[in-house]
Amino acid sequence: MKEYDVVVLGSGPGGEGTAMTASKSGKSVAVIDKLTEIGGGCVHWGTIPSKTLRHMIWRYQSNKQDPIFSMMGNEIEFQDLVDRAQNVITKQSNMRSSFYDRNDVTFYDGHGTFVDEHKIEIDGPHGKETIIGKSIVIAVGTRPYRPDDIDFSDPRICDSNSILSLPETPSSITIYGAGVIGCEYASIFRALGCKVNLVNTRDKLLSFLDDEIVDALSYHLRDNGVLIRHNEVYTKVESNEKGCVVLHSKSGKQLKSEYFLWANGRTGNTDTLNLAAVNLQANKRQQLMVNENYQTEIDHIYAVGDVIGFPGLASASYDQGRFAATHIVEGCCDRRLVDNIPSGIYTIPEISSIGPTEAELTEKKVPYEVGHAMFRSLARAQIVNVRVGMLKILFHRETFEILGIHCFGYQAAEIIHIGQAIMSQKGEGNDIRYFVNTTFNYPTMAEAYRVAAYNGLNRL
Amino acid sequence: MKEYDVVVLGSGPGGEGTAMTASKSGKSVAVIDKLTEIGGGCVHWGTIPSKTLRHMIWRYQSNKQDPIFSMMGNEIEFQDLVDRAQNVITKQSNMRSSFYDRNDVTFYDGHGTFVDEHKIEIDGPHGKETIIGKSIVIAVGTRPYRPDDIDFSDPRICDSNSILSLPETPSSITIYGAGVIGCEYASIFRALGCKVNLVNTRDKLLSFLDDEIVDALSYHLRDNGVLIRHNEVYTKVESNEKGCVVLHSKSGKQLKSEYFLWANGRTGNTDTLNLAAVNLQANKRQQLMVNENYQTEIDHIYAVGDVIGFPGLASASYDQGRFAATHIVEGCCDRRLVDNIPSGIYTIPEISSIGPTEAELTEKKVPYEVGHAMFRSLARAQIVNVRVGMLKILFHRETFEILGIHCFGYQAAEIIHIGQAIMSQKGEGNDIRYFVNTTFNYPTMAEAYRVAAYNGLNRL
Repeated sequence: MKEYDVVVLGSGPGGEGTAMTASKSGKSVAVIDKLTEIGGGCVHWGTIPSKTLRHMIWRYQSNKQDPIFSMMGNEIEFQDLVDRAQNVITKQSNMRSSFYDRNDVTFYDGHGTFVDEHKIEIDGPHGKETIIGKSIVIAVGTRPYRPDDIDFSDPRICDSNSILSLPETPSSITIYGAGVIGCEYASIFRALGCKVNLVNTRDKLLSFLDDEIVDALSYHLRDNGVLIRHNEVYTKVESNEKGCVVLHSKSGKQLKSEYFLWANGRTGNTDTLNLAAVNLQANKRQQLMVNENYQTEIDHIYAVGDVIGFPGLASASYDQGRFAATHIVEGCCDRRLVDNIPSGIYTIPEISSIGPTEAELTEKKVPYEVGHAMFRSLARAQIVNVRVGMLKILFHRETFEILGIHCFGYQAAEIIHIGQAIMSQKGEGNDIRYFVNTTFNYPTMAEAYRVAAYNGLNRL
Repeated sequence: MKEYDVVVLGSGPGGEGTAMTASKSGKSVAVIDKLTEIGGGCVHWGTIPSKTLRHMIWRYQSNKQDPIFSMMGNEIEFQDLVDRAQNVITKQSNMRSSFYDRNDVTFYDGHGTFVDEHKIEIDGPHGKETIIGKSIVIAVGTRPYRPDDIDFSDPRICDSNSILSLPETPSSITIYGAGVIGCEYASIFRALGCKVNLVNTRDKLLSFLDDEIVDALSYHLRDNGVLIRHNEVYTKVESNEKGCVVLHSKSGKQLKSEYFLWANGRTGNTDTLNLAAVNLQANKRQQLMVNENYQTEIDHIYAVGDVIGFPGLASASYDQGRFAATHIVEGCCDRRLVDNIPSGIYTIPEISSIGPTEAELTEKKVPYEVGHAMFRSLARAQIVNVRVGMLKILFHRETFEILGIHCFGYQAAEIIHIGQAIMSQKGEGNDIRYFVNTTFNYPTMAEAYRVAAYNGLNRL
């Protein structure tokens, strides 16, 4: 029976972060996943495909809206987007696969389950095998939650995995669930020309974001033609013979569309791990609870990534994996856990944000001021023919410390990192005046920082 | 005779930076320029039009190279690009014009010349007027240098201003001068499908850049089909009846093309200022010399922007104007002059860089290490279908201080600002390890920093 210092369940960002860090520190490492799924949900069903679809359709829409590029001869089909996504998936999966080879990490093709606190049985294409891990890291991710009363065997009823196998471009689609996935797919399908109903069980979109950003997203989704229904809960979803799916809501509404996308909740992939063998219990969403070191109730069994819940970002999962590995190797992890993780949301318009919102600062009675930059006044945005977008900086009135940055529009998810670099500085380094004392390339979107900083400082 | 605290000659970035800063500090300010030229060479003939042409043709080329977008029905013409540029020029010029109104800066439409050390005569559409400035700031910019032995009245022989009035898309063009302007226009015309000869009087392109970047630019220009001729100096440029311009070089070569673009040198717009009246003398390039406070030999007469020479960037000119205004207002300027100004060069591929090159660090015997990230391995680049590009970080082996960042490819001029933010920190804040301890949005181009940092740190 082979023994490893670290056995990792799952090869998504969390698993990869763990394996690479542990291996580089000299530990013997095994990673268990299906060969066909290297990269995990991130590469195969989540981030990579959805961001590829989103980029391609955004580009298509930008061409359509620009007189110089609008004369395109052909319409784009959903399958074109998926083909491109498949291309990127293959590249990413192959590249990530090579990382394991290069770093002497043993890769086991199969499904792992707990035998006891140190033994994992792997059920692979060539039979079963059991290996031993001194430490074990659970990084098995999540999958779309499927409620029992919805018939996912119906080809017109999809979740966010099966949507990628859609055989045609829908003429209309109802998306149930208006979280990040729901909002991103609403943007994608609307840009493809579908009629889109976006059904939200809550009273606003993405309520963890700053109000101004949420309002902008709601406005632009609607302005692009998405029908948003807030505060609606389904009672049943039925498919009829006319090629139509009907969502019935508690309020008595009926929403009809050709396809239906369930985007309401995900569930951890812990149900098939035989957690009972180690006396660990997942919560009702099949997620695992961990302490600040990413340890479960059993010290040498860690969990990282989407399977532990918030924030559920590939970037954060990767870092959690690195943190857990460092904790395994050194018994502690003195690296400051990054408090301020940026969020990147690839709706149309793109959104990115870091730090507290205005509402949170107001609640805490922090004396902040705000500086805005509208993208339409930036030379770069005018060159790119972009009118939509805004960057705002929240900063402390007295110390000039940057408290939060909230942004939507062209390149939002890239330029947020400029502000993040300043926000991450301790003491005097974190000062909004950096942006007025710095020379930016002209013309770039980065200039939004100077404009916003001036705007804010002029308010003092 | 009206009197102002500050009189500014020119409304380009240098003039605007001066005027806005002085006005916000409570000074009375007048700016003199032609109404039709608000924004200066930057808006009308330089940065804005060339960057717009470049963006549009890059986008056209990206569409052409992508199977999903390549079915465009129409070819693009040079005039289409110029029309878009004109659109952006108008927006920028109108917006900048509104700044003067909003900040109570008096704008004089006309051409200003020195009467004495405090008096400027303005020759405008409604006659002449003389005004008095306690301080005067010369921000008149530059124009393309035109050697006497080349006949610019020939419609096939252009400089970088008149190129914008080209009546058709050339089938071939010879560009003389391989500085930033020459290299940018070589990229633009080649992407339009023209045959391009790029004639360099020196032995390499853009020698102020890091060798690796220069090599990459040379490679990709040639790979795209540009013919580069180094170390060639013209003896004559003649236009024949067959619709052909022939450049004869000292080495005996003849380069034939439909059009000819002179991009070799610019000259300061000081020749019509009547500098003799104040005993100031420009150098042979008609540029003015200034001290570290941007003062000429006459204390209260400043000069900023392209007219003082290097670096000749809109961004730097704006900052120089702000610096000069602060010096006028406060008698000193305690703000640290930004040492490290990024350069953004909008060739295909795009280039951006900050800090010393490898050659400079080697010369100074600084013990540096280098970390690379190739764009083709980044998920975002794969999504965008970009294969070309690289970011490298030069850092001190012992202190981990970032010394320089050199980058080419997609979004280079934007993402350079992330590294700049860290490089600008004093003491411990400037540390390459920031990039491995930071969570970046995934997938973004910004991740190149993490990849490059790991690559470099692994070399230690």
